[in-house]
Amino acid sequence: MHPLITLLSDFGTADGYVAEMKGVLYSQVPDARVVDVSHEIPPHDVELARLTVARYWRRFPAGTIHLVIVDPGVGSARAGLGVSSDDRYLVGPDNGVLSPALLLADATAVTLPVPASASRTFHGRDVFAPAAAALARGTPLSALGTPHDVPIVRRTPEAVRREDGAIIGEVIAIDRFGNAVTNLVGVRNGVIAAGGRPVPVRSTYADVASGAAVALTGSSGLLEIAVRDGNASQGLRLDRGATVVWYRA
Amino acid sequence: MHPLITLLSDFGTADGYVAEMKGVLYSQVPDARVVDVSHEIPPHDVELARLTVARYWRRFPAGTIHLVIVDPGVGSARAGLGVSSDDRYLVGPDNGVLSPALLLADATAVTLPVPASASRTFHGRDVFAPAAAALARGTPLSALGTPHDVPIVRRTPEAVRREDGAIIGEVIAIDRFGNAVTNLVGVRNGVIAAGGRPVPVRSTYADVASGAAVALTGSSGLLEIAVRDGNASQGLRLDRGATVVWYRA
Amino acid sequence: MHPLITLLSDFGTADGYVAEMKGVLYSQVPDARVVDVSHEIPPHDVELARLTVARYWRRFPAGTIHLVIVDPGVGSARAGLGVSSDDRYLVGPDNGVLSPALLLADATAVTLPVPASASRTFHGRDVFAPAAAALARGTPLSALGTPHDVPIVRRTPEAVRREDGAIIGEVIAIDRFGNAVTNLVGVRNGVIAAGGRPVPVRSTYADVASGAAVALTGSSGLLEIAVRDGNASQGLRLDRGATVVWYRA
Repeated sequence: MHPLITLLSDFGTADGYVAEMKGVLYSQVPDARVVDVSHEIPPHDVELARLTVARYWRRFPAGTIHLVIVDPGVGSARAGLGVSSDDRYLVGPDNGVLSPALLLADATAVTLPVPASASRTFHGRDVFAPAAAALARGTPLSALGTPHDVPIVRRTPEAVRREDGAIIGEVIAIDRFGNAVTNLVGVRNGVIAAGGRPVPVRSTYADVASGAAVALTGSSGLLEIAVRDGNASQGLRLDRGATVVWYRA
Repeated sequence: MHPLITLLSDFGTADGYVAEMKGVLYSQVPDARVVDVSHEIPPHDVELARLTVARYWRRFPAGTIHLVIVDPGVGSARAGLGVSSDDRYLVGPDNGVLSPALLLADATAVTLPVPASASRTFHGRDVFAPAAAALARGTPLSALGTPHDVPIVRRTPEAVRREDGAIIGEVIAIDRFGNAVTNLVGVRNGVIAAGGRPVPVRSTYADVASGAAVALTGSSGLLEIAVRDGNASQGLRLDRGATVVWYRA
Repeated sequence: MHPLITLLSDFGTADGYVAEMKGVLYSQVPDARVVDVSHEIPPHDVELARLTVARYWRRFPAGTIHLVIVDPGVGSARAGLGVSSDDRYLVGPDNGVLSPALLLADATAVTLPVPASASRTFHGRDVFAPAAAALARGTPLSALGTPHDVPIVRRTPEAVRREDGAIIGEVIAIDRFGNAVTNLVGVRNGVIAAGGRPVPVRSTYADVASGAAVALTGSSGLLEIAVRDGNASQGLRLDRGATVVWYRA
């Protein structure tokens, strides 16, 4: 009852694509609660979508259905997937956006069929939203498609490297505040070399003066580089892919 | 019960105008489900609002109430409308944003009265949201206002022209991906001259190489010009109003 | 039943922070209705958040819970608050964003404890959303924390000054349409000097010609300066903090 369906896309909202998907969902699941995650993923940014999905998919209650439509390959041979993992469902293209759920041992996936009437450019409306609606109405995942037996695209962050006692990682995302999120985990002390300068590892923003750079464990467990009351990406010239190095102080 | 009320506006969200409208709706219809379509229509862009409404208004289930507030003429003599069409309701200013519903033969419309206490600058909150709320509570449309007997603004896309076997149309919208949506319909072959070069008509993006331009029927049935993995508006310098010409290859 | 919880933040949506908060809310309050106010407050803009809260918090029905997370001081000694005022609840940091509710005589507030497990950078997820969820489940405010006995940050707009029969105020916000909202109230006639030129006070945009500047009482009762069919902030070079002067014509 009142099934939860979340929506993540790179559609923006002004063009009406998201509204069409919501119309399909509410038409097919009259008592649905459709929850916007975001429609502001930069166009075709599959990697940021994957990182975002990793943050939220298990925060929602069991039974939630997550629609994830960042789909530069729509109309090509890439498959469409329905996934069950850790008591949640996910629906979207087989391009890595669903990786956080697919990496779990209990994950199962089916390939969704494409109806002949489906638009060649908008599977979000004609393939994925109807699949999410079917799950919301209680259709079992196995009835939605065929077991997915070809390799599924699974994306993971670049692994860190260890060298001469240092750990070499990279910036994997810049958030809205200009914080540079890295692939380093479990760092509690030492120094980070980033943007050509040393940044101390501390516990929180307020451990340094206003305007100073600080490295700290962010809310998802990854090491972030921030500037207190400022913008680390701009101030330290850090973009996605920039190298960061941890070393003992 | 749990009536669906959708919201489209050019308000953005940061200033709180949308929140005020939601507050009115939830106060007057305690069991409402208010659905955001978009608040990112460019300020006063009545024409894009109309195109967006055309996409979604009939995708939602019968009984849905669509609030459409792109209203550069607020405070002037322009009328406010309540509309019933194809079992949905629409509420908004008489400036063409509701045209997709008004063009149907079964459409009926009333002029909404403006209470003396209404703000002169925010009918969305003081006229249109209360009208939507009344419809959601079951008030018949005819009780909300007087039958609309003056001409109602109805916008339609520019018609295409036929000349020497060619069809001459135009770009009517640029979507977030840079795709140029045209007013050409039913094109399945031939070539489109756009931005000074020939663009082949194909079925989907993947029918051309990455970086190449392609014309194809988009998800609303209109011919679109795209660049695979790219941005057609930037790459081909296509803006709204640009001429496109179809000819046999 | 179906408690209303609204969300205002400066998080944007693409990074997934808002989605994490929604996941917490729906997990802890299965029948919640979570309403987006905005996530587009400019990063750390506590003052705009305060002005926005002032617009909407009492438009929602009694019992509504407003989450307001614009929190540049997260991880510092600033307190987290739960507030009851005029039959609504508000939850957020003690930095002035909740001032519109705190200024009422019947307001009461508690300091929320910070669990040892809370992220040092994301109290929205780990402190404020759980507090809002508890209120939504019926926990009394007094059970959520200790009475707030230190001074609470209360922000108010700069007061106007009176001088030689003129009233001197300032621009406190620029909205999405470029309208300059001032701290002048109750102005019905006379002239406003703004951006180095005289602007007549009228009732609505349509009282002047297209392209002309006009001052009028906006929908929240504050005097605004607008350009009909244009952008007053750009056209008159008015930014936040700009001086405006009322004088008898």
